Amino acid sequence: MPYFDAASSAPLHPVARQALQASLDEGWADPARLYREGRRAGLLLDAAREAAAEAVGCRPDELVFTPSGTHAVHAGMSGVLSGRRRVGLGVTVSAVEHSSVLHAASAHEAATGGTVTEVPVDRYGAVVPDTYAGALHEDTALACLQSANHEVGTEQPVAEVAEVCRSRGVPLLVDAAQSLGWGPVEGAWSLLTGSAHKWGGPAGVGLLAVRKGVRFAPRGPADERESGRSPGFQNIPAIVAAAASLRAVRAEAAAEAVRLRALVDRIRTRVPELVPDVEVVGHPEHRLPHLVTFSCLYVDGEALLHELDRADFSVSSGSSCTSSTLTPSHVLRAMGVLSEGNVRISLPAGTPEAEVDRFLELLPGVVTGVREKLGAPAGAGGARPVAATDPVGASVVVDALGRRCPIPVIELAKVFGEVPVGGTVTVLSDDEAARLDIPAWCEMRGQEYVGEQPADHGVAYVVRRVS
Amino acid sequence: MPYFDAASSAPLHPVARQALQASLDEGWADPARLYREGRRAGLLLDAAREAAAEAVGCRPDELVFTPSGTHAVHAGMSGVLSGRRRVGLGVTVSAVEHSSVLHAASAHEAATGGTVTEVPVDRYGAVVPDTYAGALHEDTALACLQSANHEVGTEQPVAEVAEVCRSRGVPLLVDAAQSLGWGPVEGAWSLLTGSAHKWGGPAGVGLLAVRKGVRFAPRGPADERESGRSPGFQNIPAIVAAAASLRAVRAEAAAEAVRLRALVDRIRTRVPELVPDVEVVGHPEHRLPHLVTFSCLYVDGEALLHELDRADFSVSSGSSCTSSTLTPSHVLRAMGVLSEGNVRISLPAGTPEAEVDRFLELLPGVVTGVREKLGAPAGAGGARPVAATDPVGASVVVDALGRRCPIPVIELAKVFGEVPVGGTVTVLSDDEAARLDIPAWCEMRGQEYVGEQPADHGVAYVVRRVS
Repeated sequence: MPYFDAASSAPLHPVARQALQASLDEGWADPARLYREGRRAGLLLDAAREAAAEAVGCRPDELVFTPSGTHAVHAGMSGVLSGRRRVGLGVTVSAVEHSSVLHAASAHEAATGGTVTEVPVDRYGAVVPDTYAGALHEDTALACLQSANHEVGTEQPVAEVAEVCRSRGVPLLVDAAQSLGWGPVEGAWSLLTGSAHKWGGPAGVGLLAVRKGVRFAPRGPADERESGRSPGFQNIPAIVAAAASLRAVRAEAAAEAVRLRALVDRIRTRVPELVPDVEVVGHPEHRLPHLVTFSCLYVDGEALLHELDRADFSVSSGSSCTSSTLTPSHVLRAMGVLSEGNVRISLPAGTPEAEVDRFLELLPGVVTGVREKLGAPAGAGGARPVAATDPVGASVVVDALGRRCPIPVIELAKVFGEVPVGGTVTVLSDDEAARLDIPAWCEMRGQEYVGEQPADHGVAYVVRRVS
Repeated sequence: MPYFDAASSAPLHPVARQALQASLDEGWADPARLYREGRRAGLLLDAAREAAAEAVGCRPDELVFTPSGTHAVHAGMSGVLSGRRRVGLGVTVSAVEHSSVLHAASAHEAATGGTVTEVPVDRYGAVVPDTYAGALHEDTALACLQSANHEVGTEQPVAEVAEVCRSRGVPLLVDAAQSLGWGPVEGAWSLLTGSAHKWGGPAGVGLLAVRKGVRFAPRGPADERESGRSPGFQNIPAIVAAAASLRAVRAEAAAEAVRLRALVDRIRTRVPELVPDVEVVGHPEHRLPHLVTFSCLYVDGEALLHELDRADFSVSSGSSCTSSTLTPSHVLRAMGVLSEGNVRISLPAGTPEAEVDRFLELLPGVVTGVREKLGAPAGAGGARPVAATDPVGASVVVDALGRRCPIPVIELAKVFGEVPVGGTVTVLSDDEAARLDIPAWCEMRGQEYVGEQPADHGVAYVVRRVS
C-alpha cells in the first residue's frame, strides 16, 4: 500500500514506537513535582531535551517542546514580535512559507497594524538573498524563512539569508518542519521550529529553539511550563519518542537521502517522458531528497487523486479543486507555475524502489483516463466561440464562466487551433486557478500571454497565437 | 509505592494504553486528507469525538480536542471574549479557579483593559450562587466556575450558578478538569473544558465543548483543524486513548467513588485524631470522592513532602515553601485557612485500602519529626521579645523578619504563654504566608486576631490573648 505523502505526516518510526511504549510507565507524572514519579518524568524530559537540542544544534535551555509544529511557529513568531515591539511591528516572510507562518503574520497584522512584507520567489520557489535583504525595513522585528518548501521541495538559501538578517540585526525564524529529519539547519538562524510527526515521531510534539540573546516575550496567559514559552502539561512519552526517533532518522539520513534522491530523480525524468503536457516544478538540484511535484495540463486534481487512491497510491495536491477554498496553493501561485492536475509525491524513508516503478507504470493510464473523461485536450463540445471581431487578426472569445479548473484551460486549448497565427483567444473565467494556469499554459505551449482585463463577469484572459 | 497525587496527573489507565497502542498504526496520517490512510485517521477521530461528546453530554460538533486542559481553557475563554466583545470586556471568575483560568483572565485584562471580577468563596472553598449573581455586571462577557476545586476537592454549585448566568444571558465556562472522570457536569453550562491525563488518559489531550448558540470567535492565527478552534495537527492515537479511557473510568466511577470516599473519610476523621494541631479543609460532604486536604500547624510543607517521599508517599502541597513564588496557594488564601504544612492527597482509582492505612500509621511520626526539627511548638530559642510597653495589658513583639513559614507562627506560639489574658502579641513578618497563617492560628486556638498594620519592615500582625 504505497503511501507517498510523508510531507503531510510520516508513519511512526519503529524507534518512536518503542520509546513511546517504554516511557508510558515513567512519563505520565508531573515533571514539576519533587516526588519520585515527578523526578522520573523530569529526567525523561531533560534527556529528551538534550537529545533534541543536539540534533537541532542548540543548547538544551534554548529549546522548548510545543504541542505541534504549528504551535511552535505561533509561539516563536508572537514571542519575538512582542519582545521586539520597540523596534517595530514589521514581519518579513517568503511568499511560500507554510500556512502557519503566513496566518500568524496575518493575525499579527490584524491585531497590531504591523505590516507584513512578502518576499517573492523565483520559478523554482526559492527566494533570492538580495531580494530578501531588500524586504527588510527599519521597522522589521522578525524575518521568517523555511529551510525547504513543503510543496515543491526546493531548499531555501537559509545560511545566506541568515547572514543578511544578522548584519541587519533582525532575528530570523527558520521553519525547518520539512528538513529537520534530514539534518540540522546551517547558518546563523535565531529561531527554529520543527514538527515530530514529519520525521516519523508521534503527533503532538513540536519544537521551538530560541537562541540566547534574542529578545523574546511570550504572549498570552502566563504558564510556568517550558520556560514560560509553551503552556500546558507536557506529553512526555510523546516527547521522548520524538527525540529518540529524531536521532534514529538522522543516523539513517545520509544513506536514505541518496537512495530516495535517486528515486525522486527517476520520477522527475520519467514522468514528462511518460505523460504528455506535464510540468515538473521545484528546483532540480537544491531540493529535499524525498519530495517531487508535477502538474498535468487538462487534468482535474481531485479526480487524479481519487484514481490514484483507487490504485492504492496516497499522494497530495496543491490544485484548487482539492482545497476547501477552491484556490490553488499559494506556493504554486507564487512560483507562477501550472496548478491544475498537481501531484506532490513525498516518499517516506524506506519506500521500496518497486513502489515507485509501479507508480510510473500506472500514472500514464490514470492521467489519460482523467483527461478522456474531461474531453481534453482536443475533443469536441463545450467551446462556444461567440465573436470574431478583431480587424487585424481573428479573435475568439471563450465563455468559461462558472466552470472550474481545468475546464477554462481545456476550452482554451480546444479553440486555439482555429485561430490563425497573430490572432487571439480571450477566455472569460471566474475561476481563481485560471489566473495561474492560463499563463502557465502559454509558457508550456510557447504562446504569448497578453494579459488580463476585468470583464462584466469574472476576468478576460487574452492569449495571442505566435506559432 | 503509593502515589497519592492523581489530581496532578493520574497513571495511565490500562484501557488508555491499549487504545493508544492499537491506534498507532492507523492514527498517524492527516485526517484532512482524502486517501485511505487519511480516511482511517479521520474515522478514528470521528469515533473518539462521538465517545467524548457522549461522556461530556454535548453534540459531537460542539466538541473539539486541544493539546491540554490549559489550551482548552485558554481557547474557550479567548473565543468567548472575542465573540462577545460588543457586550463588554468583563470576566467573572471564582477566586479559587485553576491558574489557567486566572492567568487567562489576567492576560485578557492586560491586553484589552477588560475587568476581572473575582467571586469570593466560603471557608469550604465554595462560591455562593447569590454572591456569584452579584458579580455579574452589564459588561460581563464571560463567567467561569470550576466543577470542583483542584486543591481542596469542594464541589461548586455549578447548576445553580449556570441558571443564574443563563437568566442574565452570560455564558458560563465550567473547568471540569478534576471531575470529568467521575461524571458529567449537570446544569445549563455554555462551555466546558477537560484534561485527559487527570482521568487516566494520556497527556496531550484536552477537550473544549462550546454549546451551539454561544457567540464564539477563535483568537490567534487561523487554522482549519478542529473547527478552527484549536490549531495544529491532531494527536489522534492520544485522542482515541483519551476517549476510550473516559468511557472506561466512567463505567467504574460509581463503585470506585463509593470506595474512595470511604478511604477519604477515614483520612478526614483519623488525621486530626492522630496528629495534633491539624486543620482539615474543604467541604465535608459536597466534595470529590478521591481528594482530601489538611494543614499542620508548625510544619514546613517542603520538609513534610520530602519526608513523605522518603517513605514512598507522593503527595502535593499548597504551602508557600513548596511554590516557586513563596506565596501560599491562592485557593487556601481565598478560603482563609491555614496554609502551613499543607498536604493534598488525591487517590488514583484502584488505590488499595492498605496504602491509606499505612499512610495514617506513618503520618504522625513524620509530622512530629518535622516539628521537632523546627523546635515547635513550645521549644526554646528564636523568640526575641523586644518591648512590653502597653500600659493596659502586657504586650510582646516578636521579630520574625526574614524568616519563612512556618517560623513566624511558631515564634508566635512560643511566646504566647508568656502574655497574660488581655495582652497582645505582635508578630513582625515579611513572609506572605503569615497573613494567612496567623489569623488561621487564632481561629484554631480560639484567640482574637486583632489585625495587621504596616511596619518599618514587613507587616505587624497583632493577636490578643482571650483565654
